[in-house]
Amino acid sequence: MHHKLAFIGFGNVARSLARLLMRKQAALERDYGITFSVTGIATGKHGYAVNPNGLDISQALQLVESGQSITSITNYHLPITTSIEVIAHSSADFMFENSPVNYETGQPAIEHVRAALNAGMRVSTANKGTVVHGYRELTALAKAKGKKFLFESTVLGGTPMFSTFREAMPAAELISFKGIINATTNIILSRMEAGETFEEAVRYCQGIGIAETDPSGDVDGWDASIKVAALATVLMKTPLKPQQVDRTGIRG
Amino acid sequence: MHHKLAFIGFGNVARSLARLLMRKQAALERDYGITFSVTGIATGKHGYAVNPNGLDISQALQLVESGQSITSITNYHLPITTSIEVIAHSSADFMFENSPVNYETGQPAIEHVRAALNAGMRVSTANKGTVVHGYRELTALAKAKGKKFLFESTVLGGTPMFSTFREAMPAAELISFKGIINATTNIILSRMEAGETFEEAVRYCQGIGIAETDPSGDVDGWDASIKVAALATVLMKTPLKPQQVDRTGIRG
Repeated sequence: MHHKLAFIGFGNVARSLARLLMRKQAALERDYGITFSVTGIATGKHGYAVNPNGLDISQALQLVESGQSITSITNYHLPITTSIEVIAHSSADFMFENSPVNYETGQPAIEHVRAALNAGMRVSTANKGTVVHGYRELTALAKAKGKKFLFESTVLGGTPMFSTFREAMPAAELISFKGIINATTNIILSRMEAGETFEEAVRYCQGIGIAETDPSGDVDGWDASIKVAALATVLMKTPLKPQQVDRTGIRG
Repeated sequence: MHHKLAFIGFGNVARSLARLLMRKQAALERDYGITFSVTGIATGKHGYAVNPNGLDISQALQLVESGQSITSITNYHLPITTSIEVIAHSSADFMFENSPVNYETGQPAIEHVRAALNAGMRVSTANKGTVVHGYRELTALAKAKGKKFLFESTVLGGTPMFSTFREAMPAAELISFKGIINATTNIILSRMEAGETFEEAVRYCQGIGIAETDPSGDVDGWDASIKVAALATVLMKTPLKPQQVDRTGIRG
């Protein structure tokens, strides 16, 4: 079966996913009969591209990574200037929502997911804001449309957590959990233990691309709090906002 | 939806499952609309029971655990004297195969699974022999019948392994694995480290019910070998028999 994919947000995570899909292309076709094309891409700083017949993924990756706009590769009879227009005109049946997280409201990601589900797409997101601020609404909307609202990579990335509970332990009841759920602060603390200053350790994490220029989301505990909120909301059926999580940063 | 269940093998594992199902009864109905009755039980030493309208599970547990036969609770117009007859006459739509493991051939468990699938049942087994000696045949037979051949608990018990790969990481490619996959030898070695003799540690494991009277399956590494064979056969798509696994026991 052929799938048309739209990428809303095309940062590090989304581009790694695009590369992974290209690398797995042959295996997906051989083992699952799945082929795909990317028909829409929305970026924060590098423009928008739509082509219902398929965009050149390699070219899109190259343009963004060399700091250029992807608008040049679009091939559509209308001008496309917003993420919502990419969703509306991409003819995609699967939307990946990977725009930056908004801890307070989950927007505009929730808007993107809503638009895609309403257009009959299945949705997968790495955006934690959609889970803690829109879980019930978006899950109900997906169900009403007979589609899926998926968010596996919001917590623990490559380690399946939500799908393991959903598919492999459906009757289990989660009572508590503990663990390290923010890699950046974990690395910072380990490097400080080994003798670096807080500032040196933060710079190291920024250097390897896992901490933002403004590292507050990680070092003030917001990322960990929103992940705890997502786990409680979904796996413990207890709606929780990051603001309600008892939070201690590591600024010292 | 109502499910009729048959238990082939009714030892510690199967009885724990029966108790767990009874404990989860309300949650299964509330969250999944699932109700169930047990319509057939085959034991190794305590006889056979069939009632297509449902057996009294508590009574079956009590009889077996006080060393009595369950034949008294059967309610069927034919005498039932074999596991295959339980399968054939139970009217079950789901069969749990939990007879003792046979490292060399996987029998008679493979026969039980074959009979149940041919009768249109879905099958779940904790018997590793069915996986290493019958995986391809039984998976193909289940597929042909539009049913499932499931075996999650054969390796790592309560920790989902096969279903996590199947449902949550379908495109992942397993290249290697390492780990402790036999609890009994792990406990024996830990207790020997703490000062006990091999014999004392074995007796402890027998006392808490995790080692057999003849502990060779564990201490000679056969249990670990058959688990390695099951993981390789299923997750690495490389058929392997326990006899082919490089094996070192802990008899010292």
